[in-house]
Amino acid sequence: MKKIMIFGHKNPDTDTICSALAYAALKVQMNLDVCAARLGNISNETQFVLDYLKIDAPELIHTTEGRDVILVDHNEFTQSADDIQKANIIEVIDHHRIANFTTSDPIYMNVQPVGCTATILYDIAIANDLVIDYQTAVLMISAIISDSLLFKSPTCTKKDVDACHKLNEIAKLDLEEYGLNMLKAGTNLDGFSHNELLNIDSKVFETAKAKYEVAQINTIDLDQFKKDYKSELLTEANKILADKHLDCYIILVTDIVASDSIAIVGGNVELFESSFNTKLIEDVAFLEGVVSRKKQIVPYL
Amino acid sequence: MKKIMIFGHKNPDTDTICSALAYAALKVQMNLDVCAARLGNISNETQFVLDYLKIDAPELIHTTEGRDVILVDHNEFTQSADDIQKANIIEVIDHHRIANFTTSDPIYMNVQPVGCTATILYDIAIANDLVIDYQTAVLMISAIISDSLLFKSPTCTKKDVDACHKLNEIAKLDLEEYGLNMLKAGTNLDGFSHNELLNIDSKVFETAKAKYEVAQINTIDLDQFKKDYKSELLTEANKILADKHLDCYIILVTDIVASDSIAIVGGNVELFESSFNTKLIEDVAFLEGVVSRKKQIVPYL
Repeated sequence: MKKIMIFGHKNPDTDTICSALAYAALKVQMNLDVCAARLGNISNETQFVLDYLKIDAPELIHTTEGRDVILVDHNEFTQSADDIQKANIIEVIDHHRIANFTTSDPIYMNVQPVGCTATILYDIAIANDLVIDYQTAVLMISAIISDSLLFKSPTCTKKDVDACHKLNEIAKLDLEEYGLNMLKAGTNLDGFSHNELLNIDSKVFETAKAKYEVAQINTIDLDQFKKDYKSELLTEANKILADKHLDCYIILVTDIVASDSIAIVGGNVELFESSFNTKLIEDVAFLEGVVSRKKQIVPYL
Repeated sequence: MKKIMIFGHKNPDTDTICSALAYAALKVQMNLDVCAARLGNISNETQFVLDYLKIDAPELIHTTEGRDVILVDHNEFTQSADDIQKANIIEVIDHHRIANFTTSDPIYMNVQPVGCTATILYDIAIANDLVIDYQTAVLMISAIISDSLLFKSPTCTKKDVDACHKLNEIAKLDLEEYGLNMLKAGTNLDGFSHNELLNIDSKVFETAKAKYEVAQINTIDLDQFKKDYKSELLTEANKILADKHLDCYIILVTDIVASDSIAIVGGNVELFESSFNTKLIEDVAFLEGVVSRKKQIVPYL
C-alpha cells in the first residue's frame, strides 16, 4: 500500500509547502500513512523556513496516477498535477474559490474564506485534539505570515491572526523579526532569469473585456528594483504578452515593509489606467497601500 | 437587508428539508439573519416529521437571484434552483460528490463522505458550542434515519450512528419506533399519479455504455406493491424511456423493513441482467440486501 500524498499547487509558495508538511504531521497522528510532496521548485522565502527548522523540502513528484492524494491550498485541476484526474482525491483543504474541480464520489472538503490554508489546519488540529509540535507550529506560522504579509494583506482575517498567535504560544518566535526576515529572504532575486522572475508567482485572468496576466514580485526597495529590473522585465513581459495573446501584462512589485506597490504595465495600458483612474509615468504607476493581487487588483480590471 | 436563504436540492427529501430547518436554527445562534427555504413539494415522509413537531414547512421559493444563499445536501447547480448562478452562494454543507459547481470567490464549504448532511451539522454545532434544542435534535435525527434507512443503508457511517445517538440524548425518542413510523409514512402512495410516483426520487445517469434512469420507491410490502403498481409503472417507465431516449429504466422498490429490493426493468433488460448476473422474471428481479441506489446499483451498471 503506497503512502497518501499531500501537496499544494504548482509554483509552490510558502503556504503550499508548509501546509503540506504540517498536515502530514497532523495526519500521522490520525493514523494515516501519508507523506508531503510538491509539484515544483522551492522559493527563497520557503527555503528560509526549511533552513530555520533544518528540515528537507517535501519530495518533488512528477505523477499522481493511481495514488490516493490530499490537496492543500488549491482545488482547480489547472493548478494541480498534470495527471491529477488519474489520482484518487480523498481530501481538499483550501482557501480559494472552487472551480475546475469535480469528483466521482463524496470526499472530505474543508474550504474556508480565510487568508491561509494553515489557519484551517489549526482548526482541524483543535477539533481532533491533535498535538501541534514546535516544528509544525513554525511551519503553520510561516504560512500565515507569508500569505498575510505579516497580517497587512486585506486577505488576512481575524481567524488567521488568532491562529498565528495561538501557534506562537508553542513556537515562541519574535513574529515581527522572524516574519520580516522570512519575507526579506523571498525578495532575494539573485540567480533568477528575467523570465523566471515573472514566473515566480504569476496568474492569467480572463474577463469579458480582456485577457491579462499579473505577476507579483516582493521587494524591500521599490526604487532600487525599478533601477535594476524595470526595462528588462518589461521587455520580457511584452514577449510573453505576444506569445499568449494577452491584452495586458501587469508586473506588481510590492514593498513588503512599506506595504505599497508599483505596477509596471505592458500592452493595453489604457485598460490599466482607466481601471485604476491613474496615469502611468514611464510605464509605472505607484499604488499606495496595495499589496493583494486577489483583493486589490483583479476585481478592478 | 434580506435574509440569507438556506435550502437543499430539488425534489426535496427529508435530509434536505430537515437540514435546512436545523441549520437555520444553528445559524441564528451565530448571529446570522437566515431563513430555511425549499425548492419543491414536501414528501409524505417529511410531512410526518413536520406534523410530529407541529411546525410548518420552509417557504417554497421560485428565485434566488441577487440573494445570499447557503446550500445544504447538494452542490451541483443542476440539482439546485434554476437561477442559482444569479445568487451569491456563501456556504455549502453537503455529503455528495462535487460536480457542476463553481464560485468566483472563496466560500465556506464543509463536505464530508458521511451518510447524511445533518451529521455534518452536528459537527458544526459541537465545534461552535451551539445549543441543539429538542426540535432541532428531532429534525437532525429524522434526517439521519431517513438517509440511512434506520442505519441499514451501506451509505451509513459510524459518524452518522454516533451523531444520531448523541442527538437522541436530547430528543429521547424511541429511535426504532419513531424511525419506522416515519419511513412507513413515506410509503403511503395515495394520491400520486404513476408519473408522480416515479418522480418522487428519480435520477438519470450516463455511462460510456448507456444512459439510464433509476427511480427509487420505498414500501413495506413488495408483493402487494407488485400487484398494485407493477404493470402500470412499467408502462409509464417505458413512456419516459422513449421521451428521454434512455437505454434502460429501473424502478427500484425497496422494502424498508426487510431491507431488500425488487427491480422492475424496462428497455434494454440485458444491460441490467448482465450487470447483476440475474434473469428477470416477468420484468422483475429480486435483489437481496439491496437498499442503496448510490452504492449498490449505480456502480454496477
